[in-house]
Amino acid sequence: MAKILTVLYPDPVDGYPPRYARTDIPVITGYPGGQTAPTPQGLDFTPGELVGSVSGELGLRPFLESRGHRLVVTSDKEAPDSVLDLELPDSDVVISQPFWPAYLTPERIERAPRLKLAITAGIGSDHVDLPSAIEHGITVAEITHSNSISVSEHAVMQILALVHNYLPAHEWVTTRRGWNVADSVSRHYDLEGMDVGVLGAGRIGLAVLRRLKPFDVTLHYCDVHRLPPDLEKELGLTWHPDARSLAAAVDVLSIHAPLHAKTVNLFDEELLGSMKRGSYIVNTARALIVDRDAVVRALESGRLAGYAGDVWYPEPPEEDHPWRTMPYEGMTPHVAGSTLSAQARYAAGVREILECWFDSRPIRQEYLIVEGGRLTGTGARSYTV
Amino acid sequence: MAKILTVLYPDPVDGYPPRYARTDIPVITGYPGGQTAPTPQGLDFTPGELVGSVSGELGLRPFLESRGHRLVVTSDKEAPDSVLDLELPDSDVVISQPFWPAYLTPERIERAPRLKLAITAGIGSDHVDLPSAIEHGITVAEITHSNSISVSEHAVMQILALVHNYLPAHEWVTTRRGWNVADSVSRHYDLEGMDVGVLGAGRIGLAVLRRLKPFDVTLHYCDVHRLPPDLEKELGLTWHPDARSLAAAVDVLSIHAPLHAKTVNLFDEELLGSMKRGSYIVNTARALIVDRDAVVRALESGRLAGYAGDVWYPEPPEEDHPWRTMPYEGMTPHVAGSTLSAQARYAAGVREILECWFDSRPIRQEYLIVEGGRLTGTGARSYTV
Repeated sequence: MAKILTVLYPDPVDGYPPRYARTDIPVITGYPGGQTAPTPQGLDFTPGELVGSVSGELGLRPFLESRGHRLVVTSDKEAPDSVLDLELPDSDVVISQPFWPAYLTPERIERAPRLKLAITAGIGSDHVDLPSAIEHGITVAEITHSNSISVSEHAVMQILALVHNYLPAHEWVTTRRGWNVADSVSRHYDLEGMDVGVLGAGRIGLAVLRRLKPFDVTLHYCDVHRLPPDLEKELGLTWHPDARSLAAAVDVLSIHAPLHAKTVNLFDEELLGSMKRGSYIVNTARALIVDRDAVVRALESGRLAGYAGDVWYPEPPEEDHPWRTMPYEGMTPHVAGSTLSAQARYAAGVREILECWFDSRPIRQEYLIVEGGRLTGTGARSYTV
Repeated sequence: MAKILTVLYPDPVDGYPPRYARTDIPVITGYPGGQTAPTPQGLDFTPGELVGSVSGELGLRPFLESRGHRLVVTSDKEAPDSVLDLELPDSDVVISQPFWPAYLTPERIERAPRLKLAITAGIGSDHVDLPSAIEHGITVAEITHSNSISVSEHAVMQILALVHNYLPAHEWVTTRRGWNVADSVSRHYDLEGMDVGVLGAGRIGLAVLRRLKPFDVTLHYCDVHRLPPDLEKELGLTWHPDARSLAAAVDVLSIHAPLHAKTVNLFDEELLGSMKRGSYIVNTARALIVDRDAVVRALESGRLAGYAGDVWYPEPPEEDHPWRTMPYEGMTPHVAGSTLSAQARYAAGVREILECWFDSRPIRQEYLIVEGGRLTGTGARSYTV
């Protein structure tokens, strides 16, 4: 019998379940590149349900309890005597989401001697201290591809929203009860003809590039792994050897790199200052890749024409976090990868991993970040330790 | 000597010129299909400037005054003794924008015996009573293609914003100073896999279809003019013979039809009621194509999961217009076709038309809607009278 500690974001304010806007979600069976969507042996929820919040329990309870395991679900993860900290010492498995991360610090891992498996219900395991996981023989797995398309759509939306000055224009006709075309359009541009680049051309970055192709923009990317020549040609891509070269070349930059030693604080005052006046940044990756206060200053000075991000540090951010009130922002509360569509896939992927784990079958290679005391191929593609 | 009466939207609240976010705009020399961007002999503004508001004067004053013509520019168009009405009787040319339309009603046309040319600085001449223009021998011209791509980008943005529940999520981290993932994602879906259709597959509708293609959606369209078979195949399009068939088939419907007798009030209670529960409508065409109050009721009942529009009736709308406060909206104040990028093109197009007019050279055929007492080919493509 195992104890599975699951940290999920709190339920909706008006209670669980919410009133859903739609009856179902499209059935997605596979991803670009050929990987299939999760294939658990069973599923105890209906795709389209809010399984990512506490009462949703990722749809795991019937399955786990029928096997005699113990499931603890909480959103309480911050205070020193949080449920996370109280329940951690005898937990065998910890499940957490990037949208409400249970930060598995070296200290916490020290206090979890039974912990053998840390699952990220989503993509991005930077909330787990990977060196500690390696040292303690903890397997780290994430649901590769489960929400990559979700995030890529969100990034394209935020790019368009910044360039088209959507949020201020919306405010004029709603909150302000007014009508002001001139103020709305004074910062309103077409994306057509601009230079747009992605930092990181993995699953999400490449999906963004593909979606932007018909907008008649000039596409750029920077990634240590160069894309195949025929793909570069098909999308008309210009490759940049480093972030500095990319940042100087583009009007719009979308960040799709994982957070690790080489990307932390990458967009500092100096790199931001090297961008064209009036550039836009969209960041759906991780907040610590940019210097929080340098972004605010760049918006105030006009170096940046807009910054839209989905990611913050910490999460949740303080009530007075400056990104809440900086000018020309288009922020969201880490929702890009947690659409109801994505939840169905990452919950099914967690179930698939647990089924494998309990039945001593191998977990899909592409899900594994750390296994057997080392970074796997997938892990090494995204992280440095 | 001619008198040119130009009706433009008011200047920004903080005065003219605004502080521009960017230094320049991409140079666009042609449009899909091969039409070239406007080719006036001269230009008295810098592309990227706010030429669409009153002080911007579409950049026309030096040109017109050097030729001895008289330019009157106003935004005052509504009250019975508006500048529009006072100046109209001896005007030879009237220029207006869809974003701040000078409604040239039969009554007004009766009171404008010298009027020979009505130019729409943009696309969509439904604010001109075309039968009256035909009867009075008035030439009606618009700047075909000048802002089609602008509007198509705006429509794709609004589609993504509705499906991804962008505006409520943004509100949580800004105005509300909070952090609520569950409430934000409870109505948050991926576009991937959905059925998306356009009503009207002209320049804008087709551009929307092309931009949506890589989102891995199933595309639909309805247009009396069927697209070429190879284009249908390339984009994987399903053609629908009428709006009812389209509306029943899609999850997302984007309206790109002109306003005329066959489209006015098309989306009434009955047609909206025939759509799938949880459908989305984006309307960047004309407000009168939908029944204002039926849209509100459909949002309240859940028939529609969202409605984002850029167009209202009248414009500006009343302070208590219900679309300002209805749930699940993503409205903007008729800005989609008036990006700074589009303004540069439609102002140059107006200049081109005026140069031709004064020099007795033919106006480009594709700009003409009404000429010589009849609808032109371009006009007949979009309007019925």
